[in-house]
Amino acid sequence: MNDLAATKIIAIDWGTSSFRAYRLDGAGGILERMEAPMGILKVPDRDFAGALESLIFDWARLAPQAPVVMSGMIGSRQGWRETRYLACPVGAEEIAGAAEAVPWRDGRKVWIAPGLSCRDASGVPDVMRGEEVQILGALEALGPGRQLICLPGTHGKWATVQDRRITGFATHMTGEVFDVLSRHSILGRLMADENDEGWFQEGLARADADGGLLHHLFGVRSRGLMGEVPAEGLRSYLSGLLIGHEVAAATVGPVDRVYLLGTSRLGEYYTAALARRGIPVEHLDSDAVAAGLFQIAARLPADEESS
Amino acid sequence: MNDLAATKIIAIDWGTSSFRAYRLDGAGGILERMEAPMGILKVPDRDFAGALESLIFDWARLAPQAPVVMSGMIGSRQGWRETRYLACPVGAEEIAGAAEAVPWRDGRKVWIAPGLSCRDASGVPDVMRGEEVQILGALEALGPGRQLICLPGTHGKWATVQDRRITGFATHMTGEVFDVLSRHSILGRLMADENDEGWFQEGLARADADGGLLHHLFGVRSRGLMGEVPAEGLRSYLSGLLIGHEVAAATVGPVDRVYLLGTSRLGEYYTAALARRGIPVEHLDSDAVAAGLFQIAARLPADEESS
Repeated sequence: MNDLAATKIIAIDWGTSSFRAYRLDGAGGILERMEAPMGILKVPDRDFAGALESLIFDWARLAPQAPVVMSGMIGSRQGWRETRYLACPVGAEEIAGAAEAVPWRDGRKVWIAPGLSCRDASGVPDVMRGEEVQILGALEALGPGRQLICLPGTHGKWATVQDRRITGFATHMTGEVFDVLSRHSILGRLMADENDEGWFQEGLARADADGGLLHHLFGVRSRGLMGEVPAEGLRSYLSGLLIGHEVAAATVGPVDRVYLLGTSRLGEYYTAALARRGIPVEHLDSDAVAAGLFQIAARLPADEESS
Repeated sequence: MNDLAATKIIAIDWGTSSFRAYRLDGAGGILERMEAPMGILKVPDRDFAGALESLIFDWARLAPQAPVVMSGMIGSRQGWRETRYLACPVGAEEIAGAAEAVPWRDGRKVWIAPGLSCRDASGVPDVMRGEEVQILGALEALGPGRQLICLPGTHGKWATVQDRRITGFATHMTGEVFDVLSRHSILGRLMADENDEGWFQEGLARADADGGLLHHLFGVRSRGLMGEVPAEGLRSYLSGLLIGHEVAAATVGPVDRVYLLGTSRLGEYYTAALARRGIPVEHLDSDAVAAGLFQIAARLPADEESS
């Protein structure tokens, strides 16, 4: 803690359910990490300024000049300030240029990154908020060319990048569908709270069969009822089924590799689903969000920084 | 009520959420219908004998010789007596032959129909309980040949019939998925409790696009967020999306027509989804369950009837 004054940037990923902060040095190196279960929906009275002060009091006090840059749902309608959705394609310059300054305390302010939007071939829009900064942080490692990046999660994202610009993306509701079906549908009734690699693979295999997802889902019930999948296997079977459907839909056409940005267990599930389809995976740095926020901080207007 | 003595059969469809009963004459004609919100899960202390007595007391008392024949979830593990699942293909004879007699009161008994099971090309099992009796009741109207029957619902069924025998079926969890997503997922947040035919059609159209169901589901969120689908349209858009995916998966291959067995509004939705794919619909009698239970009653062993 005696290097607090070395802090050049305070980078924050403030999402729906958690708060993650980093102290960065002048080269974007991580001096310290902090995490708290203080997602935006848990902030009392939506007093984000007060919550931020209590969460990073020492960091901010001892590095009064360090810009505070944040991304995630803090920039949504339910957050501190609703920032824009930038339309793809976009790169680091546009994202940094659309970050909004929000007054915090004692004349200090925080910067909140924008979200991204895109439209598919049918003109249907998609949106992301937070993941774009993680992708931004991974762009240096990717280099030029066209890449497909997968960010598994509650609302998993598959983004295409071309020469360090995000050209488009598709969101899959897989994580939330898994959650609501496990907790609120008939599928949860027989289900034990355990994971099983073998049944996960069976779910992946089932996703490749005819019949459609809505039919395959009922199979979780019927196979459980007939005793063919034990209670301890049903959760993983459902997970494999859903992830299998997502990965099949997201990797239509030639895909020579997928870059994965995600937490450990979920990342393993997606790696397995992709391996089944013969697609190799490269894992990107899970602290990419800190690198992305550093990219933004490095591009903030100097005059505004002192305003 | 003065023709109670004319009752030859008491036919009951006892499901999870409702109880429907019919008084039938000797030719299967419906003398009277009765419906009560007394599904098997609402029967106090699982006292099905007592609940049945209070529900059809007069009918049973004034027609002491009339067999009481029932189908639906009353034959499940949560019901009065868990009856078998017969493996397809099956016809009226096998279904009637597997009905089980359960003692009721004063030496009288009730008959509970079996359920059906089948396996798809991958060997994955499927089950139904209740719908098979509705199909049985519709078989006379269908005549010989091969037919595809759709029974929309919480767990919608698509059954194939060949020369009056049920050869197989597939269950789609569409209704329950719609329900849990509307009530428990982020998709319900922006949604008004209204129906809109135009947005239902938009949902059907979206189901035909690339991207997969899990991606299309998130589009309900993003289109709502962007103000492209109004709150009043989101419910129908989600419904069209799910029904569109179900119908597409259930009508792969040549299908020249679909026989629909279902309640009014849901039946209209499926008719619209099938019309979009150029598949004509023929509506079957919604009292088919009474006709099916009559078929069973007509085949019950005479000696057992008096036992």
